[in-house]
Amino acid sequence: MKLLKDKIKKLGQIKDGDVLKVDEFLNHQIDTKLVDKMADEFIKRFKGIKFTKVLTIETSGIAVAYPVAQKLGVPLVFAKKRDSVNINGEKYSSKVISYTHFREYDETVSKKFLSNKDHILIIDDFLAKGSPLRGLLSICIQAGAKVDGIGIAIEKVYQNGGNELRDEGYRVESLVKILEIDEKTNKIKFGD
Amino acid sequence: MKLLKDKIKKLGQIKDGDVLKVDEFLNHQIDTKLVDKMADEFIKRFKGIKFTKVLTIETSGIAVAYPVAQKLGVPLVFAKKRDSVNINGEKYSSKVISYTHFREYDETVSKKFLSNKDHILIIDDFLAKGSPLRGLLSICIQAGAKVDGIGIAIEKVYQNGGNELRDEGYRVESLVKILEIDEKTNKIKFGD
Repeated sequence: MKLLKDKIKKLGQIKDGDVLKVDEFLNHQIDTKLVDKMADEFIKRFKGIKFTKVLTIETSGIAVAYPVAQKLGVPLVFAKKRDSVNINGEKYSSKVISYTHFREYDETVSKKFLSNKDHILIIDDFLAKGSPLRGLLSICIQAGAKVDGIGIAIEKVYQNGGNELRDEGYRVESLVKILEIDEKTNKIKFGD
Repeated sequence: MKLLKDKIKKLGQIKDGDVLKVDEFLNHQIDTKLVDKMADEFIKRFKGIKFTKVLTIETSGIAVAYPVAQKLGVPLVFAKKRDSVNINGEKYSSKVISYTHFREYDETVSKKFLSNKDHILIIDDFLAKGSPLRGLLSICIQAGAKVDGIGIAIEKVYQNGGNELRDEGYRVESLVKILEIDEKTNKIKFGD
């Protein structure tokens, strides 16, 4: 998606540790006009599939996922992140390792909000190794819900999480694919 | 707003410690059709004011604030909650005490995203004593930004945070006002 790629080129910041900061338009300040057009693009790519719910993860997934759910006319559910604790029986949960923040946490979703009748579109801002996404998939499997699509704003292709999911048969659509981030030259190499 | 009041009556859950859970439609699963209509109502109430940005707090404020910013055609900025740490000079910050979770934290907003040219509409899901809101106001004062409106989904009037702000001259609009929550009878008394 050219619009998002141009925005990353203009406003994205490369930080140590393979971090691409998109605080200006996606993660702290949200360019609602851009994110709305991203939602249109997701809907175009997944056209024909009857989703019953959109699922994402707090915090930065919410604003990217909201307009997708809004335009599809379905509820949005967001998984909560909690420091690993004993989860009671009312929640689906999955342990996730964050490579960005070097910590382990649980993703949880109340059992009330996912069932084996659901057809889920997962939306998130980033996909790298794919740990948070694996947590969401595990939660959907626990609920018996079918994941019919995964929509990602920015995929770091070189971290391979996206292609592993595609190899397993998941339909993953990324609006922007990043092939390489060079921290020395501050250059990003984009894919198609 | 009758629609939101009816939803609270039907799906809201009263929990010990003066907690009203609205997980079914506002805080964990989000009824995007309802929240969209709430956004229309906020916009109607603040008609004529030229806002430059919508400001809210992670996590549960984001989905309520997104469609308001979207419909106004302005960016959405959300303050981040962090365990109290030394904040560097690039952020506005304010210390907040959470009475729900019995902890102290910092709300922070990058200095890039608020300035003395901004006219802010603050949107949040709940207003009780008003601590998180006070944090946002402090951040706006630090930035020299003008707060021209505060839109709240559910105000617990008996906790007085809203009326204190009105007495100070802030324009606070709440879609639903709660006068009393009776934990014994599970009854909610609504205001106009």
